[in-house]
Amino acid sequence: MGSLTSDPELKYNSGSFTNPLDSEEFRRQGHMIIDFIADYYKNVEKYPVRSQVEPGYLQKVLPESAPNNPESMETILQDVQQHIVPGITHWQSPNYFAYFPSSGSIAGFLGEMLSSGFNIVGFNWISSPAATELENIVMDWLGQMLKLPKSFLFSGNGGGVIQGTTCEAILCTLTAARDRVLNKIGRENISKLIVYGSDQTHCALQKAAQIVGIDVKNFRAIKTTKSSSYGLSPDSLMAQINSDVEVGLIPLFLCATIGTTAITAVDPLKPLCDVAKQFGIWVHVDAAYAGSACICPEFRHFIDGVEGADSFSLNAHKWFFATLDCCCLWVKDPRALVSSLSTNPEYLKNKATESMQVVDYKDWQITLSRRFRSLKLWFVIRNYGVANLRHFLRSHVNMAKLFERLVSGDKRFEIVFPCHFAVVCFRVSPSPVLMDKLKTKYVNCLLSEEEQINEFNRELLESINASGKAYMTHAVLGGIYAIRFATGATLTEKRHVVVAWTVVQQHLEAFQSAFKP
Amino acid sequence: MGSLTSDPELKYNSGSFTNPLDSEEFRRQGHMIIDFIADYYKNVEKYPVRSQVEPGYLQKVLPESAPNNPESMETILQDVQQHIVPGITHWQSPNYFAYFPSSGSIAGFLGEMLSSGFNIVGFNWISSPAATELENIVMDWLGQMLKLPKSFLFSGNGGGVIQGTTCEAILCTLTAARDRVLNKIGRENISKLIVYGSDQTHCALQKAAQIVGIDVKNFRAIKTTKSSSYGLSPDSLMAQINSDVEVGLIPLFLCATIGTTAITAVDPLKPLCDVAKQFGIWVHVDAAYAGSACICPEFRHFIDGVEGADSFSLNAHKWFFATLDCCCLWVKDPRALVSSLSTNPEYLKNKATESMQVVDYKDWQITLSRRFRSLKLWFVIRNYGVANLRHFLRSHVNMAKLFERLVSGDKRFEIVFPCHFAVVCFRVSPSPVLMDKLKTKYVNCLLSEEEQINEFNRELLESINASGKAYMTHAVLGGIYAIRFATGATLTEKRHVVVAWTVVQQHLEAFQSAFKP
Repeated sequence: MGSLTSDPELKYNSGSFTNPLDSEEFRRQGHMIIDFIADYYKNVEKYPVRSQVEPGYLQKVLPESAPNNPESMETILQDVQQHIVPGITHWQSPNYFAYFPSSGSIAGFLGEMLSSGFNIVGFNWISSPAATELENIVMDWLGQMLKLPKSFLFSGNGGGVIQGTTCEAILCTLTAARDRVLNKIGRENISKLIVYGSDQTHCALQKAAQIVGIDVKNFRAIKTTKSSSYGLSPDSLMAQINSDVEVGLIPLFLCATIGTTAITAVDPLKPLCDVAKQFGIWVHVDAAYAGSACICPEFRHFIDGVEGADSFSLNAHKWFFATLDCCCLWVKDPRALVSSLSTNPEYLKNKATESMQVVDYKDWQITLSRRFRSLKLWFVIRNYGVANLRHFLRSHVNMAKLFERLVSGDKRFEIVFPCHFAVVCFRVSPSPVLMDKLKTKYVNCLLSEEEQINEFNRELLESINASGKAYMTHAVLGGIYAIRFATGATLTEKRHVVVAWTVVQQHLEAFQSAFKP
Repeated sequence: MGSLTSDPELKYNSGSFTNPLDSEEFRRQGHMIIDFIADYYKNVEKYPVRSQVEPGYLQKVLPESAPNNPESMETILQDVQQHIVPGITHWQSPNYFAYFPSSGSIAGFLGEMLSSGFNIVGFNWISSPAATELENIVMDWLGQMLKLPKSFLFSGNGGGVIQGTTCEAILCTLTAARDRVLNKIGRENISKLIVYGSDQTHCALQKAAQIVGIDVKNFRAIKTTKSSSYGLSPDSLMAQINSDVEVGLIPLFLCATIGTTAITAVDPLKPLCDVAKQFGIWVHVDAAYAGSACICPEFRHFIDGVEGADSFSLNAHKWFFATLDCCCLWVKDPRALVSSLSTNPEYLKNKATESMQVVDYKDWQITLSRRFRSLKLWFVIRNYGVANLRHFLRSHVNMAKLFERLVSGDKRFEIVFPCHFAVVCFRVSPSPVLMDKLKTKYVNCLLSEEEQINEFNRELLESINASGKAYMTHAVLGGIYAIRFATGATLTEKRHVVVAWTVVQQHLEAFQSAFKP
């Protein structure tokens, strides 16, 4: 063996280089980064919530090419603090009220770390049995917490899988639905397939339809109205399907939403599934945001009727304390997914797969490689427990209700859409006095009265966000521009909601004082 | 404000619950998990590499439903040690030589942690400018390190994006290629489109083709042969294309591979691109595994000809020290991706996007939400530096060469396919003496001589893997079953390679001593 150790090509192993995964160096640097992140959370409230940088800011301060020699982690972390943190929009800030929350938690973070630490590639059972089996178990746990029908659980011959995002969940189920139909009627009929959603459905549906080869003219974004609180009307769906069927088209897939992105509207599951059933349509329920709330008995009714659906998904990274990404998808018929998405190359063949006793998740999703995502969900559920998780979610809903009360108590504002969950849509009201002033403010802009009040609210929102004190986004519906205030950031406490409201008021007052007399 | 704090619904915020993202509790538990993972790395060598559990093992020890009350992180980590670790196949073990490596590193892990800590959802520029801009910069860095033509870099009007896996990269580029053609010739012609790969191309291509609606009969897995070292022959490609065109079909997409999954074969890029160019075919280069090595000048020639391709991808989580997942994709024409994959819902509208001065990565990929993946790549490149990264890769190649020498020095074995990178394919040779013994061993099995030697090697591999002392996988090519030994696990040192070889020899000797005299 002496000749081997003296091999000059192999110096690295016995030489002066520290192994990039050396356990003691890992320990030292790991503790350093924990302190860095803990300090970040301690200070996150002080940073402007929406990043204030200009496009191209980073290129000006980073080198044009990679360093040839190593730089210390200390130096890198200094650069993170100096150059990266200012370019971050702080989703974990307690003053973050934009889009939907990205609700981090210690348990979710720790689960993610452990997953990164093991760094296994769990494409099939044998590649790490624990990764597959824990996912089976935890998805059944969460399914039970949601009171999903047993047919969606492994214990009822359905099953759950953790994917990255809703976009993937919809893409997979749509592919499965497409192939189920085309295998019967012939692949040449792809151009007859019709996909249904509402004008409030997440853009993921349209993108998935586009990817699987559904012509954009075969995508139906059925109009919703105020009368149905912007939920998809079963009558409208039926009318659309009938007119499609009449001309020889084939209804394929419906995506119903519990908690739409703009205003958290709810599509009525039961009657929609009843309509879909008549035509053999695959119904996917996108509960990306609001699904989490349905572990609370008082919210569960929003998914009544789910027993008529084929698949159901929620994003545990949105409002369930799991770190991004963690989209939980349940299907009644896993074979439909597997039939569309399975591959069986020689290099992955193994005894466990051949025994047919195991799940190989690679056949339930787009990608082959997959992270051990169930760890974080398991950590979250165990470390907080069902009772606390409900408590946390309710606290966010209550903070939204508090904000709603604050808005309602100020006559200059109005609630635009009712708050089902933890998102409040409001605006400065178009009072006669204000509209009179806006007529002057926008005198040269050729705006209608409706456009004037919308523009005014848009400017108000931009002014709030530019201050860095709070970050909110917007929704436009029925011609109305609303400011959208979403609670759910984990660090948010009641005091932040109260301050955010004060910020809104102050910005309005500043605007008003700028009006010419 | 007094009336607000006494609101009974809001007790949570002022009550006894610790916030799930409390910075000091984060610090305490964060340090705990770092120590847990550091200890895991310290001990990982002691665990059986391939998990030894039986299907269903975990269900027997975990509760059937979620706990109502919280459980401490200490309890959870005990369960991880007791129940999860035995179910893990240890990809980070120095004795892991299976599939391809999942090369972890401290820098990659730290970058991943920071990304989880910020937990931003970087779908567009404004959602965290640093996430987009750092990705732009780092992808240009890595592109330069690979000496990709400038047309693939942002600085040359192309650009790079970090996706999860090669499956996504192929799916996105194939969708873009499909739409580029169908927009010209009409969507009804989808059934005429042909996708090309070889019989060695990764199964991701077939799956992507299936998802985007290419009929399986329009998928060409062109046969490779020993004479071209299992690389795709440009002549075979040309012949196949000609016969497709002759019957009115339309060549669409070619996936060429640098380092195939089975035996790391290399498709000859330049002549393949020359053929493709004549037919306007989109060429994607899948360098998932071997691309990393091309930062070393002595390996760069393997991607000569890449200037003729449309897109190029490598998995930095395979052999470039980034934690899973980190697939780097470069395209010459980002507009083709954006044109197929963009969405523009009202709720995502913002000034930065409208200014057209920024990249919104949501339009370069399948999913909307995306993690801050560039941090880990930036950390890896800076913390090790280009010189060390080359050194690490070379050390893995040298360890594979060492193993190859060890195999070659034992007359009972033979190298089956030449080793380009860090994967060695070998087997027990079908010597006349051995074949004579196998005739007796398999007397009741109705196997040809070829099948007998294959079965013998299969049994040998299973015996090695079942021992837990090393984990290797297999490849079957040209009727030959080979044992496949891949170096690249970060902790592997020369001594592990030597021991693994001893394990192979010992298992063969045990088999031989079991032969009846």
